[in-house]
Amino acid sequence: MSRESFDVVILGTGPAGLQAAIHAARKKVAVLVLGRQPQSSLYKAHVENFCCLGKIAGGDLLGAGREQAQKFGAQMWDEDVLEVTSGGEGFVIRTESGREVAAKSLVLAMGISRNKLGVPGEKKLLGKGVSYCVDCDAGFYRGTKVAVVGEGSAAFSGALTMLMVASEVHLIYDQASVEPTLAGQVEAGGIFVHSGRKVKAILGEKLVEGLELDNGEILEVEGVFIELGAKGAVALAGTLGVMMDPESMQYIAVDKKQATNLPGVYACGDITGPPWQVAKAVGEGCVAGLEAAAYAKDRRG
Amino acid sequence: MSRESFDVVILGTGPAGLQAAIHAARKKVAVLVLGRQPQSSLYKAHVENFCCLGKIAGGDLLGAGREQAQKFGAQMWDEDVLEVTSGGEGFVIRTESGREVAAKSLVLAMGISRNKLGVPGEKKLLGKGVSYCVDCDAGFYRGTKVAVVGEGSAAFSGALTMLMVASEVHLIYDQASVEPTLAGQVEAGGIFVHSGRKVKAILGEKLVEGLELDNGEILEVEGVFIELGAKGAVALAGTLGVMMDPESMQYIAVDKKQATNLPGVYACGDITGPPWQVAKAVGEGCVAGLEAAAYAKDRRG
Ligand SMILES: Cc1cc2nc3c(=O)[nH]c(=O)nc-3n(C[C@H](O)[C@H](O)[C@H](O)COP(=O)(O)OP(=O)(O)OC[C@H]3O[C@@H](n4cnc5c(N)ncnc54)[C@H](O)[C@@H]3O)c2cc1C
Ligand SMILES: Cc1cc2nc3c(=O)[nH]c(=O)nc-3n(C[C@H](O)[C@H](O)[C@H](O)COP(=O)(O)OP(=O)(O)OC[C@H]3O[C@@H](n4cnc5c(N)ncnc54)[C@H](O)[C@@H]3O)c2cc1C
Repeated sequence: MSRESFDVVILGTGPAGLQAAIHAARKKVAVLVLGRQPQSSLYKAHVENFCCLGKIAGGDLLGAGREQAQKFGAQMWDEDVLEVTSGGEGFVIRTESGREVAAKSLVLAMGISRNKLGVPGEKKLLGKGVSYCVDCDAGFYRGTKVAVVGEGSAAFSGALTMLMVASEVHLIYDQASVEPTLAGQVEAGGIFVHSGRKVKAILGEKLVEGLELDNGEILEVEGVFIELGAKGAVALAGTLGVMMDPESMQYIAVDKKQATNLPGVYACGDITGPPWQVAKAVGEGCVAGLEAAAYAKDRRG
Repeated sequence: MSRESFDVVILGTGPAGLQAAIHAARKKVAVLVLGRQPQSSLYKAHVENFCCLGKIAGGDLLGAGREQAQKFGAQMWDEDVLEVTSGGEGFVIRTESGREVAAKSLVLAMGISRNKLGVPGEKKLLGKGVSYCVDCDAGFYRGTKVAVVGEGSAAFSGALTMLMVASEVHLIYDQASVEPTLAGQVEAGGIFVHSGRKVKAILGEKLVEGLELDNGEILEVEGVFIELGAKGAVALAGTLGVMMDPESMQYIAVDKKQATNLPGVYACGDITGPPWQVAKAVGEGCVAGLEAAAYAKDRRG
């Protein structure tokens, strides 16, 4: 497969990723931004505490930022990243449409997922069969029956991962929101797909014993992976070897230059921890974008 | 004199100070913002790289931010701070109109001064009679003749300081921009005031020997203090005991929570070092405002 190369690849199209793109692109390096903007926390929010603007709709802010980043030369692909690895003289990114991209430096701006299913049994059985991270917990479910819940790339690629581990894999979603390539892989495999369905409850007392769908159907499974949206920090950063903040184990640890423990990898926005605010996201994005561009330039030779 | 008390006092009305004010005020603490907005670096700038806005005039941004901060309950006084000291259970701030304000916590957001005079001799004689900080260098000029150049509170209060040290003090400005109280103190003292005048050149080969004004007049002085605008970080933070970044000795050292070495004192924006960008200023302002509010609340008893 042909591999496109960029100086700086930014994962995430929220305010952090956009601000990083603007500052990197103005340094005349080749910049690619990956992600689905409607997945940004800001997309449906209304903001009135971001200086120096009156009350404004998050969607409008994001639209304006997108135009701004493109004007300065950043490319934008509206798709999720499935995997990032260190490779050659930089990093290799695999997207849900199956494209591979090479990058000299990376900016992680994937935000945080606040998404819970909010169904009976979910909270009680967390860690007892309920998991929010296929990549972290797949190994515990070898040879068992599992369900993966979610409409985005994290659930679809998660189901494919589980297919290599579990004895039976169910994928449950209402309306799919993934690239055709990924959807095709799921259809081709031996996954039991329940489309147009929602989860009504997770069953079990001490451990997960099953899943009830909104049509009354009951799936007998021992594991339920809730993967709403795209792969988050823990999953993507984990396989790359990026260190998490030791206190939370949820946020990416960065220094004042937004650098992670891996040379060439920067992080910004909600993904680095609270306060979860647009102002903090753009502030960190500005620094991360400048640093990533400088790093990439140094390695152009 | 009666002393007004606030939970959080913010020095500076640029984007960093305004964003700090917005976030602090929303925490329901009493917030005061001090400073002259036209002195912000942003005031005359045009910005096109701040996410997520198109091209916008800095003055318009600042005006909108001011309204926003006031809407959430922050008070704004359009005057400079002359001195900050630790006192009692917090800090005491003295302004150019002679008012004293008590604060439980402080946010330093005074930006950086890029202001040079740009006259012949200025660069060559830096450190050889030319200084940008009365509070730092006054002691070197005991018993000598000096000139202080500037139209704002830093020059006026600087001239008053030099009056206690030097044998002769000249104050040179084109148009004054200070509170009547401070102007009155300068008029009352024994300062030689050259108003409506500009500096044409600083004279001397190895050391400062004099100053030439735009009317041809020559002042024989050994020291020239260039103090354009208000007192900056080095001067104000120095007397308070706030640590500077050891590499630059120009910027205030802060941790990831924007805390300085002094409990209750936070800093944000250009004053903490590069990159000098609006995005970084609001990002740091957001964190500093939240932290300062939390600190003040803890001490309300
Ligand atoms: C209801 C609500 C109200 C809010 N109100 C305010 C407010 O009033 N003021 C305020 O300052 N903040 C507010 N916030 C918070 C604010 O929205 C966030 O702080 C901000 O959006 C964080 O920006 P970010 O760029 O870090 O992350 P996000 O905006 O969440 O963006 C993350 C991006 O990463 C992408 N992504 C995720 N995973 C992947 C992947 N695997 N591959 C590629 N891309 C990926 C997503 O598609 C998205 O584009 C609110 C949030 C919510 C939910
Ligand atoms: C010509 C120019 C163009 C620029 N273009 C851009 C751009 O395109 N994009 C971008 O992101 N940035 C740009 N910048 C930089 C941007 O303006 C600054 O990064 C930003 O204003 C910093 O905000 P701040 O709040 O830290 O400081 P400032 O905005 O400088 O505000 C400092 C405030 O502190 C006050 N103050 C100072 N001393 C005292 C005192 N003793 N007592 C009380 N108050 C005091 C001042 O009155 C002022 O209100 C530009 C700057 C300049 C000069």
